[in-house]
Amino acid sequence: MASITCSGSIALDTTRTPFKTVENVLGGAASFFSISASFFAKVHAVSVVGDDFPDDYWNLLKERGIGLEGVQKKKGKTFHYDCSYSFDLYQRFTNKTDLNVLGTFEPHLPDDAKKSDFLYLATMPPEKQLDVIKQADGSKLIFMDTIEFYIRGSNSPLLKAFGEVDGVILNDAEARMLTEESNLVKCGKKIIKMGPSIAIIKKGEHGAIMFHDDAVIPFPAFPLEELLDPNGAGDAFAGGLIGSLAKQNATSPKLENLKIAMAYANVMGSIAVEDFSVNALVKANKEEIDKRFNDFVGFLKVH
Amino acid sequence: MASITCSGSIALDTTRTPFKTVENVLGGAASFFSISASFFAKVHAVSVVGDDFPDDYWNLLKERGIGLEGVQKKKGKTFHYDCSYSFDLYQRFTNKTDLNVLGTFEPHLPDDAKKSDFLYLATMPPEKQLDVIKQADGSKLIFMDTIEFYIRGSNSPLLKAFGEVDGVILNDAEARMLTEESNLVKCGKKIIKMGPSIAIIKKGEHGAIMFHDDAVIPFPAFPLEELLDPNGAGDAFAGGLIGSLAKQNATSPKLENLKIAMAYANVMGSIAVEDFSVNALVKANKEEIDKRFNDFVGFLKVH
Repeated sequence: MASITCSGSIALDTTRTPFKTVENVLGGAASFFSISASFFAKVHAVSVVGDDFPDDYWNLLKERGIGLEGVQKKKGKTFHYDCSYSFDLYQRFTNKTDLNVLGTFEPHLPDDAKKSDFLYLATMPPEKQLDVIKQADGSKLIFMDTIEFYIRGSNSPLLKAFGEVDGVILNDAEARMLTEESNLVKCGKKIIKMGPSIAIIKKGEHGAIMFHDDAVIPFPAFPLEELLDPNGAGDAFAGGLIGSLAKQNATSPKLENLKIAMAYANVMGSIAVEDFSVNALVKANKEEIDKRFNDFVGFLKVH
Repeated sequence: MASITCSGSIALDTTRTPFKTVENVLGGAASFFSISASFFAKVHAVSVVGDDFPDDYWNLLKERGIGLEGVQKKKGKTFHYDCSYSFDLYQRFTNKTDLNVLGTFEPHLPDDAKKSDFLYLATMPPEKQLDVIKQADGSKLIFMDTIEFYIRGSNSPLLKAFGEVDGVILNDAEARMLTEESNLVKCGKKIIKMGPSIAIIKKGEHGAIMFHDDAVIPFPAFPLEELLDPNGAGDAFAGGLIGSLAKQNATSPKLENLKIAMAYANVMGSIAVEDFSVNALVKANKEEIDKRFNDFVGFLKVH
């Protein structure tokens, strides 16, 4: 079975929506990504937690079969992220970001993690993403994410990272900021010129556009009537994407591999938002995921 | 060949974009709809123009084979619509609406127009839409559009019209205002409960969601790198939709008919925005339309 290594944050989140607030729940990009991808392949997580990290959460990740040898346990507090959502749940406001043990995190990949064919670099300082790429010398397909903070800031390490990965996943605002273009098709084409052969621009409830070499493929989002907590949707999306590519053993993915992966990405993102924290992902099962995948593929089939 | 009757405005538009302004160009819902639908079926237009309406525009519509017997020529000025677009072309600001001869327009359907199987009611006061429905007693499939002004205003004639049509086409803001729901899936389901068995909620560059009985089908928009003038895109979209249904002779459309029609709707909308006024639609040809349709269907085919 193909395996995936994911480096990124594990967090304790406080998420405030107009309908409910949850405190100190399991969050962080590596948590959402790993749980989502664990339905498709073996995942090795590379991250850090503090000594306040609840055993229940550790066991939850372990029970999903996620390799935790690369997750360091440090003295101090776990990374804490506190945010509020607007009434319609489409706008997020950061209240507080306490990096805690994540602030001094130096990723160290255990041997198994170095050998994974698939590597996902969740948002981190680009210098650390480059360090993980160096350590993971067995990886054949590398995707990365980033955020506005690193686009605004240290641009040259970020561009260096872009030059060393196969795929980049960004949201629309990040893509526009990075490329200084308003039109998303232009944004995607510019990103492809920066190095990666695959660029995915996410538009939240409006779906995503995938760029692969010259192809430009738009995807709608899976239509949802209820959404409770959009937090982590992007990382669950990435987990479905890389998970599906790993399951297809597509280390040099063709367009047809990528389209299947994009459909699974949409499915996993749509599941993630249906409950707070990682709850809906943890409750999901393979049958439900495949049913939603088949529904999604059916929607899109015109004739 | 199936025929379509379309009642709505013919206008002289002044369109101001950050890059170019055009004055007194052919516009209006009936113009965009009829030219778009004319690639698929015979169209009878029901509208009004003033004595300032240029012969060139009259001939342009005639050359597309559009039946103009139902277009009244009145003393006075043609309806004039003046708008400006934001820098990214996604927001429209109305500068001036001079109804002129449209203000006292009473639609009269010639015999041929009464017998069309397909009827499209572009935006008009709902009382006049109801009058056209009454006159067009041969029609088997009726779609209507409306705007915020009529949703805000005379709600009971609008709801009566909703009860007499098969399909409603609205944009996202209109659907939210009408149903007082934020989530678009909820909006669509509420509209279906108001009477029509088909509801289409347009989201501009983000595509559209189609509701048909219990089915909820999301569509992305055709990805475009350049767009010059979004004016009329919605009516060109409707023209592709009803045009394709007419070509399929689908007076009681099934989901598969509607999906093909939605793909053509997206194609015609995407062509319309590539030039000012109706220019790109007029320059289009069947081969180009079918090529774009096949590309769109290909994008959406996952496996």
